[in-house]
Formats: sequence, structure tokens, C-alpha cells
Amino acid sequence: MGGELKKDKTLQVPPASTELTLRPIGVVRSELKLSPGRDHDQPTKPKERITEIRAQHRKLQKLVSELIIDPAFEELLEGIEEFSHILVLYWPHLLPEENRKIRKVHPMRRMDLPEVGVFATRSQARPNPVLISTVRLLARRGNILEVQALDALDGSLIVDIKPYMEMTPEADQPRFPDWLRKLRKDLTE
Amino acid sequence: MGGELKKDKTLQVPPASTELTLRPIGVVRSELKLSPGRDHDQPTKPKERITEIRAQHRKLQKLVSELIIDPAFEELLEGIEEFSHILVLYWPHLLPEENRKIRKVHPMRRMDLPEVGVFATRSQARPNPVLISTVRLLARRGNILEVQALDALDGSLIVDIKPYMEMTPEADQPRFPDWLRKLRKDLTE
Repeated sequence: MGGELKKDKTLQVPPASTELTLRPIGVVRSELKLSPGRDHDQPTKPKERITEIRAQHRKLQKLVSELIIDPAFEELLEGIEEFSHILVLYWPHLLPEENRKIRKVHPMRRMDLPEVGVFATRSQARPNPVLISTVRLLARRGNILEVQALDALDGSLIVDIKPYMEMTPEADQPRFPDWLRKLRKDLTE
Repeated sequence: MGGELKKDKTLQVPPASTELTLRPIGVVRSELKLSPGRDHDQPTKPKERITEIRAQHRKLQKLVSELIIDPAFEELLEGIEEFSHILVLYWPHLLPEENRKIRKVHPMRRMDLPEVGVFATRSQARPNPVLISTVRLLARRGNILEVQALDALDGSLIVDIKPYMEMTPEADQPRFPDWLRKLRKDLTE
């Protein structure tokens, strides 16, 4: 907790008008679809929501999805099959544009948990909705990757594939907030 | 290794003309800069390159950088300080546009390692150069995050901040290619 941080809050940030352009490299094929007729923004009672999250979680563990990569990029996948797990970066194509302006959320839409800033959550509603899932790579056939437990909806746009390298601080005593411990406890109990 | 994968390689992928637009939410302030006068695309002899990577790695472990988040997004950081580690998604602002067309690379520019597709590496040269680093969060002061061991160059454009949740398959026997084991072994020996 050094005291070297600059206090000037206006330190130059890039102008908000700077645009960075992504082009999809592929698309997700999955059984996961938005349930029609269900208003996903409608708050659910905490108990019902916990039951719902648990059911989704159980279903997700077994779910197998396909990543259809643009055949023009097939060569870029060479060697990916030597990894057991990959990171899928994808764009939630059904996210309403105005949801990119949401500032705080209840994690996993659980109204019994405190609201936190979206950067402190994995919510899909965020200024730049590039979502990340780490999944098991089951098979590669040319430009198609078969993966397990991907939480992306059918039709999600894939923007990048990276190998899972465990380069990161797994061993380094990570610390999590109470709401996350509660979310996990409620998954299994 | 199920046999259910479709063999039709032309399965609809989104048209390559689809554009997804990101706007930077902040900028990296770091001591890491491109060494002037050094041609980074110049291949180095394997032994020299190993020494170079080791020195960079040692320096990086101690490096403290600042993430200057646009003050307009300060509220979105609320609660982030309860996490010990975060994912920084950033755009390498110095990457030449033509490097987005690179298809295969020697990992870490080590010519003694086999060339693999860029999606099988963490190379910054990739069609959509959204890079991810998992770093320790040392402190937050308003819109400024102080982080440890971030490998982003000074001036890199931040596109998202996510909490590190260890939701992923750390415990699930990950498997890595030989070249990655070699890279790591050479870091310390």
C-alpha cells in the first residue's frame, strides 16, 4: 500500500472517442438459448434465484458446445489441441446496447447480495462486453473446437481464443469478497 | 472425443465485416517502455533470448504499475478492492496494424521452439489484440488501481477490469504442451 499514487484524478486518459475495432473470428453453437417469454431483467425472489442458479450450474458442467471458427483462421489454431483448457473471449450478441451503461449490479442478479460496481463482477453488462470463459477443450476438428461447460449463449460472437496457461497467481493466496463466498456456498448446499 | 462434430466447415460464421466497437476505459502507467533503437522483430539467438526473457521475468515480478481509469467510470470499480487479484484486459497501442495478420509464431520469439498458431499462444500479434494479464491488486485510490507484475507497456489502453475468481479449472488437471514446459523450465534454471 505505497503512498506513491498520484492524486491527480484527471491524469490523461485516452479520449473517450478513441475506437478500437474487433471483428468476430467465429461463433458459438450451444444448446444455451434465452428462454422465450421470460423477462431476464425481472428481479426474482432470493430463494427462487438461488434454486435457478444451482440448476443452471449443474446443467452447465455437462454442457458441450462448439466453437465454429472462421475457416480463414484455421491455421491460427495449430497447436491448440496440446492444451487441455482454453480461454474463450466472446461478445454477448443479445446484450442490449444500453446495458453497456449499467454501473452497479447485484452479483448473479441475487437481490440478497450487495450491489457492487460492474468491474468488480463478471456481469455481461459492462462498457466493453468482452466476456471470458475458461473451458475444457474436448476435441478439435479443423476449424471446429468442441468445449465443455461454456456459459456463452448460442450465437455469441467469438473474438479470441487463448490457451489456459496457469501463469497466474493461483498459488498466491487469492482473496475474495464475502458475496462471492456466499454465491459459491449456495451453489452446493 | 465425441463424434458429433459437424463436418461442414462452412457452418455459418458471422460476416467478417461485422464490427464490434470498444472504447478505452483507461490507460496503463508503467516503467515498461519499448527500448528505443532495438528492433523487436529481429530474431535473437536462442541462448541470448533465454537470458533476455529471464531478466524481463525477474524485473516484472517486482514491477508496480498504475491503471488510470477514466474518472467517469470510478463508480464501476466499487468493491474491486475486496479482491486480491484482477484481470486487466488491454489493447497493445504500439502493435502495428499489420501484425494482426500474423498466423503463426515462435512462442516468446524463441527460435528454438516450434512455430504454433497464434491462438495457441499469448502473443500480442493476433486478429483481435485484446490481451489479458492477471495481476495482484495492491491498492485502489478512487479511479486509480496500483497493481503488481503487469506486463503491459506504458500507454496501453485498458478496455476492461474483471475480478479474478478462480472459477476455473485450476484443480482439474490442466495439460500443457512441451514448448510451454520448456519455456518455464528455462525461466529459472
